[in-house]
Amino acid sequence: MAKVLFKRLAIIGVGLIGSSIARAVRKAGLAETILLADPDSRVRERAAALSLGDEVFADSGEAAANADIVIVCAPVGVCGAIAAEVGPGLKPGAILSDVGSVKGAIIRAMAPHVPAHAHFVPAHPIAGTEDSGPDAGFAELFEGRWTILAPSPDADPAAVAKLRALWEGIGAKVDVMTPEHHDLVFAIVSHVPHLIAYNIVGTAADLEDVTQSEVIKYSASGFRDFTRIAASDPTMWRDIFLNNRDAVLQMLGRFVEDLTALQRAIRWGEGDKLFELFTRTRAIRRDIIEQGQDTAAPDFGRRSAAPAADHQ
Amino acid sequence: MAKVLFKRLAIIGVGLIGSSIARAVRKAGLAETILLADPDSRVRERAAALSLGDEVFADSGEAAANADIVIVCAPVGVCGAIAAEVGPGLKPGAILSDVGSVKGAIIRAMAPHVPAHAHFVPAHPIAGTEDSGPDAGFAELFEGRWTILAPSPDADPAAVAKLRALWEGIGAKVDVMTPEHHDLVFAIVSHVPHLIAYNIVGTAADLEDVTQSEVIKYSASGFRDFTRIAASDPTMWRDIFLNNRDAVLQMLGRFVEDLTALQRAIRWGEGDKLFELFTRTRAIRRDIIEQGQDTAAPDFGRRSAAPAADHQ
Ligand SMILES: NC(=O)c1ccc[n+]([C@@H]2O[C@H](COP(=O)([O-])OP(=O)(O)OC[C@H]3O[C@@H](n4cnc5c(N)ncnc54)[C@H](OP(=O)(O)O)[C@@H]3O)[C@@H](O)[C@H]2O)c1
Ligand SMILES: NC(=O)c1ccc[n+]([C@@H]2O[C@H](COP(=O)([O-])OP(=O)(O)OC[C@H]3O[C@@H](n4cnc5c(N)ncnc54)[C@H](OP(=O)(O)O)[C@@H]3O)[C@@H](O)[C@H]2O)c1
Repeated sequence: MAKVLFKRLAIIGVGLIGSSIARAVRKAGLAETILLADPDSRVRERAAALSLGDEVFADSGEAAANADIVIVCAPVGVCGAIAAEVGPGLKPGAILSDVGSVKGAIIRAMAPHVPAHAHFVPAHPIAGTEDSGPDAGFAELFEGRWTILAPSPDADPAAVAKLRALWEGIGAKVDVMTPEHHDLVFAIVSHVPHLIAYNIVGTAADLEDVTQSEVIKYSASGFRDFTRIAASDPTMWRDIFLNNRDAVLQMLGRFVEDLTALQRAIRWGEGDKLFELFTRTRAIRRDIIEQGQDTAAPDFGRRSAAPAADHQ
Repeated sequence: MAKVLFKRLAIIGVGLIGSSIARAVRKAGLAETILLADPDSRVRERAAALSLGDEVFADSGEAAANADIVIVCAPVGVCGAIAAEVGPGLKPGAILSDVGSVKGAIIRAMAPHVPAHAHFVPAHPIAGTEDSGPDAGFAELFEGRWTILAPSPDADPAAVAKLRALWEGIGAKVDVMTPEHHDLVFAIVSHVPHLIAYNIVGTAADLEDVTQSEVIKYSASGFRDFTRIAASDPTMWRDIFLNNRDAVLQMLGRFVEDLTALQRAIRWGEGDKLFELFTRTRAIRRDIIEQGQDTAAPDFGRRSAAPAADHQ
């Protein structure tokens, strides 16, 4: 049995990420008591039915008041308001953390509400699926994945170490970086990829010359991969783009610049330029597979995943 | 046992698609004899070792000369040259077909070499993976997937019907469309998605502020999906962009126009516009899953596919 790291752990927002943390912490035995809070009564009912925690609250402040660690797992846009609710009641020595996909804006919104007697250690687990809600979570979500911590330079080292131990205890690997660098890195590896996926799906739906039914029928030729990403939660992603605006616009500028060069190469029939890029990009896929960040199975292993759905 | 459709079937180019057709035709018993041709001696060795056909040739013309149907499964750019090699020797009544991802340019390149006593019926199966070569193929590749036929208006109906029966016999659903419409549809559902995947992977590799090792470590946040597509065969994809230039540039123009609007919405903080698009795109994913064109499992079912690679 693993060492109990926290007597009372509170999770605010019991969706995909919050419920996965609850399941994983319980499975690893890292907290004696798990407290859950969510404003949505259907979410609270599911949380209770699934026995995700020991107590379920409608009021975030109540759940947080007696906790040793409080992890906010709600959309980026409401994290400031939640900090305002839970901050004043935090116990001396308690840790406040989050899982938001953006760090700079969340820290600016949350930090002012953290009393001097508590510790704020922002975090972001690099794991998820396109689904959301308490039923979508699972205990293994973070295994072998990275979690980024972005503490301020004067954060309490003991609090940072405890949060690191929690994430490692549920299977994650932990890295520390500044909020600014975090937001730049995730603009290119996550936010811009989501934006272009949403965009191409939107473009395809709006065409006059190609029907929506054709787009759906023939999607196995590439398009369907993008639709998975473009099925992600609209609230979560709206909040990410609104709150990481500068880094997203910067990376989007680079993307468009490169796309323009590619467009020109196609127009002028410069096959060698296309071939050179298409060869270079393969190496990156190889590294991702070698480092265990994706499956090596062709087509993401779709065949073995769900033959029934795949072979209709 | 299924009815034999062809006495002698020849496949020119024994890669992912060619070897999958050979396996599927053999499994379904649709041809008495399968003849294979490939200019690459390593491919021929693998084809023989895997017993993909009854005879393996270095010379395409030789393989085709006595066949009742010849299916060219080579990159788009060489299909014209192959037609020039095999065309003159085709038997009276023989069918010449292909599997190229582009139709207009291939038809312009191949059709002039087809003698009056043979039938040309171009085709395109909407199935594949990011892998290539004879070892990557499998008999079930076409099951439940669409294959497009693009015969000219004066094509022999009996020849078209026989090719349809072959594709249906290996599990495919068949649609007929004009080459022009085909090229427009696949520009948006396949070619532009591949182009933007190649492009974002290239952009991410070239940044100064974010290292390549960071891109790889944190790729599970969205980026890795794009790297799978951007690991597709460079020759195949160079040929597609060079041979479907006009439709790709047209669809790319629409994509960029829409992306510019999205960029503007982010710059001006127009959350409602983002939310509206992100909601609309979910419906398309739902239709794709309902129509059996993708798995409903979260993350493409990666968890069940290859836990070892995923949880390193
Ligand atoms: N999904 C991913 O792949 C992923 C990965 C890494 C990080 N993240 C981050 O994790 C956070 C949660 O994402 P998720 O995927 O878990 O979303 P989710 O499944 O939609 O869960 C979010 C939960 O927060 C609740 N909530 C909304 N407003 C709240 C408030 N004011 N106080 C307390 N709870 C509130 C929501 O309730 P309602 O039912 O009322 O909406 C919902 O139950 C986001 O910040 C996101 O950026 C997500
Ligand atoms: N992959 C997909 O997802 C997919 C889907 C639908 C349609 N297609 C189309 O299918 C065709 C083949 O793609 P693939 O994925 O099967 O590619 P592949 O695995 O690379 O196989 C192509 C084969 O054709 C051979 N070849 C090259 N030049 C030739 C020539 N002059 N004569 C005869 N054979 C030649 C290649 O030999 P080498 O070893 O010398 O290269 C290789 O063995 C392409 O036109 C593509 O557009 C592909």
